[in-house]
Amino acid sequence: MGNEIRVTVWNEFRHEKINEKVADIYPEGIHGAIAKFLQAQPDINTRTATLDEPEHGLTDNVLNNTDVLIWWGHKAHKEVSDEIVEKIYKRVLDGMGIILLHSAHFSKIFKKLMGTSCDLKWREAGEKERLWVVNPGHLIAEGLGEYIEIPHTEMYGERFDIPQPDDLVFISWFEGGEVFRSGCCYNRGRGKVFYFRPGHETFPIYYQPEVQKVITNAVRWAKPAGGPAPKFGKAAPIENITVYEG
Amino acid sequence: MGNEIRVTVWNEFRHEKINEKVADIYPEGIHGAIAKFLQAQPDINTRTATLDEPEHGLTDNVLNNTDVLIWWGHKAHKEVSDEIVEKIYKRVLDGMGIILLHSAHFSKIFKKLMGTSCDLKWREAGEKERLWVVNPGHLIAEGLGEYIEIPHTEMYGERFDIPQPDDLVFISWFEGGEVFRSGCCYNRGRGKVFYFRPGHETFPIYYQPEVQKVITNAVRWAKPAGGPAPKFGKAAPIENITVYEG
Amino acid sequence: MGNEIRVTVWNEFRHEKINEKVADIYPEGIHGAIAKFLQAQPDINTRTATLDEPEHGLTDNVLNNTDVLIWWGHKAHKEVSDEIVEKIYKRVLDGMGIILLHSAHFSKIFKKLMGTSCDLKWREAGEKERLWVVNPGHLIAEGLGEYIEIPHTEMYGERFDIPQPDDLVFISWFEGGEVFRSGCCYNRGRGKVFYFRPGHETFPIYYQPEVQKVITNAVRWAKPAGGPAPKFGKAAPIENITVYEG
Amino acid sequence: MGNEIRVTVWNEFRHEKINEKVADIYPEGIHGAIAKFLQAQPDINTRTATLDEPEHGLTDNVLNNTDVLIWWGHKAHKEVSDEIVEKIYKRVLDGMGIILLHSAHFSKIFKKLMGTSCDLKWREAGEKERLWVVNPGHLIAEGLGEYIEIPHTEMYGERFDIPQPDDLVFISWFEGGEVFRSGCCYNRGRGKVFYFRPGHETFPIYYQPEVQKVITNAVRWAKPAGGPAPKFGKAAPIENITVYEG
Repeated sequence: MGNEIRVTVWNEFRHEKINEKVADIYPEGIHGAIAKFLQAQPDINTRTATLDEPEHGLTDNVLNNTDVLIWWGHKAHKEVSDEIVEKIYKRVLDGMGIILLHSAHFSKIFKKLMGTSCDLKWREAGEKERLWVVNPGHLIAEGLGEYIEIPHTEMYGERFDIPQPDDLVFISWFEGGEVFRSGCCYNRGRGKVFYFRPGHETFPIYYQPEVQKVITNAVRWAKPAGGPAPKFGKAAPIENITVYEG
Repeated sequence: MGNEIRVTVWNEFRHEKINEKVADIYPEGIHGAIAKFLQAQPDINTRTATLDEPEHGLTDNVLNNTDVLIWWGHKAHKEVSDEIVEKIYKRVLDGMGIILLHSAHFSKIFKKLMGTSCDLKWREAGEKERLWVVNPGHLIAEGLGEYIEIPHTEMYGERFDIPQPDDLVFISWFEGGEVFRSGCCYNRGRGKVFYFRPGHETFPIYYQPEVQKVITNAVRWAKPAGGPAPKFGKAAPIENITVYEG
Repeated sequence: MGNEIRVTVWNEFRHEKINEKVADIYPEGIHGAIAKFLQAQPDINTRTATLDEPEHGLTDNVLNNTDVLIWWGHKAHKEVSDEIVEKIYKRVLDGMGIILLHSAHFSKIFKKLMGTSCDLKWREAGEKERLWVVNPGHLIAEGLGEYIEIPHTEMYGERFDIPQPDDLVFISWFEGGEVFRSGCCYNRGRGKVFYFRPGHETFPIYYQPEVQKVITNAVRWAKPAGGPAPKFGKAAPIENITVYEG
Repeated sequence: MGNEIRVTVWNEFRHEKINEKVADIYPEGIHGAIAKFLQAQPDINTRTATLDEPEHGLTDNVLNNTDVLIWWGHKAHKEVSDEIVEKIYKRVLDGMGIILLHSAHFSKIFKKLMGTSCDLKWREAGEKERLWVVNPGHLIAEGLGEYIEIPHTEMYGERFDIPQPDDLVFISWFEGGEVFRSGCCYNRGRGKVFYFRPGHETFPIYYQPEVQKVITNAVRWAKPAGGPAPKFGKAAPIENITVYEG
């Protein structure tokens, strides 16, 4: 109980309300689908939050009791308040893990954590994708085969304008001729950041077992590590040394 | 001529105006001292810019004709306009190099490029520092000995809240018991970023030949590499493939 | 039981036999001291092995049932058989973690895994060392303070000829003026490698609780991740494509 | 003259002697083709060496006067003498750059520098390859477009068992469904290492201008940086401190 990883799954939750096709695929919202398979894990305790709730569902109380935040957004990045983004940012630097899915590459929080534009190339042709595991010693690759195949998806292609990942776990191949760094790990402050590409709203990708496995592994990888809180600012003086002033 | 590296040395230029001691050490400003040794290099062409000039001296014309920007700031980070910071940021992603000196760790542009707080520990005791070269194969280490010794300086100590550097060139040792990652290289977009610790305003550090050598080397390392401008957005369709819509 | 991490603590075990001072400090050998504190952990199951046992105590059966190998050696690196080194190497690439302590920087297996000389600077003056945590978000930093202080130790100084670590967790400060990258993480194949500096044979360093904590954390970090075993060699043919032969 | 980069192009030079098709494509050997386009550069001075020459053409005099060594080998890796490999290795650690092409992934020197098996997946179907530039700020990407297309080639696919590159410049896409890290940069000692995938012996890949451009750029990137030679071994004593002996 006390050892459960407390996950908050955040979703913009707009496509599902206005697009019948998306609503058919994700009747409980993308957040609902993700929360469901995570909740089935004995070591994970899940709640959800969405854009249109007060404070986007991310009150101080929620954030302070979240070990790992999962983020899905697409068409309303600009509606996320700067104040909430700042709070998430501080929590990440303080140790909260964050997992950003698919179109969240353009979320305010991801761009702020990366320090780059996070821009990319895209195509909606429902083409085939293969995510090759290039770091089979990484926790996020636990239990996978040598690649994950997604039969139909939107393409994201390089150049993906991100800093070089601290660990690169997946590289995607696309039918149309592109590649993409699809599973990227970063350290920011005491927190861990994982960007994972799969998950377009018009395809049932979050029901695919291997995709669920990756997100579940990423939660375990991204949980706070419990290292020392940094002490910033004025340091202790040096004993027995006369200050030199030039 | 056409091959010269065009450097703009930017300085907050406030300490020099109000603190006699700083003015004595840097009568032409910190920017003046840095520009002078760079200008003496045959392959470098230098200009300067300061906070209190219109647009902080960083007009579109200046920025668009700058290959490497050097930044020194300390007490007036907040007075740098967000609009200018945004322009610098875009130029870095587009290939302009940037070198951040000493207290510029807390500049808006460095924090924006890093995605972290960039906070640290400090002490003003005029203590001794040694910067050890830990990557002697790096261009920035060209012509140096195995360490640089600075007889009297302000201390900066770990934990330094930055992303793990893409290349770490120097680690500092301080008399009082601290260490610091003092020469840190990053890639952001097509641009290169170098943070270099030495340079407190009340010590004549920018007259020290080894410090000048590092900054000169860093200019050569940070100049635009001339790689391909990324093409973002909608990609070409796939030939001979029927789009799948689920 | 089935989930316990199976650790083998390997020690050269020569100093203890011929040097009374070392024998006084480590009456059960350095391996005995390390095995003891690890064995006290509920999730770790420990055995030991030493140089003078048949096959250095590292039979196929032992290696194949080891999740994490801990290595201490100093004066007899050359006596370790190349055949055993090759077996350890293959096990690491296959997922076994390895933790190399102090003078093991010059062991055959570490040099083979690094691809560099692993040389360094040293001084025996019994001076003070402080290991600063520079990556407080790393598992290996769990439960530590912002630094570990070792009152008396042999100094190791930069330049340490290793590849840039995938993750750098500790940087050491030494009383005499040197710094050292003291906690270095690498990925090799599916295995994890951790080099940890502390541990000279004439000081009781492995009885220090923070040092024990780091080694315990490192065992948990280095255990096999369970990712996919790579498939090397001839790949499947491409369906429906005529091979082009020029 | 004194500033020219001294390149030695080494080739196994066996396929060309026994396979008519290879001899037709590379009548002067693969080394001859590479040396020719490099020699056309004003800042590069090229010589060649091959396996069947005395000392494989790599005498002490040749190695000591080589700034960057280019290596192509395939079927005779085992015939390269361990003694010569050791000499190359020491020269790399001492600052000589090395560029390994295509099947040189399995050369003794590359495996020794990497510390891994360097194994991979392959298929000979004459399929299409696209090398995407994922680091457009890197010197090796200078003057390229956003990808290089090779119309017909042997496929190399992940999992490629190498350490995570210090800089990853290219990722390959293959027609048959695989990806590959095709341009990988490493630091070893004071030397730089670049692995570049293209170049199967039965395709005229080294005549392709973009491939020639990459190799030329890599020579400029890999040349010795001129940083300090490390001082290893016993360090200077600490002044005014009594040695503590426990």
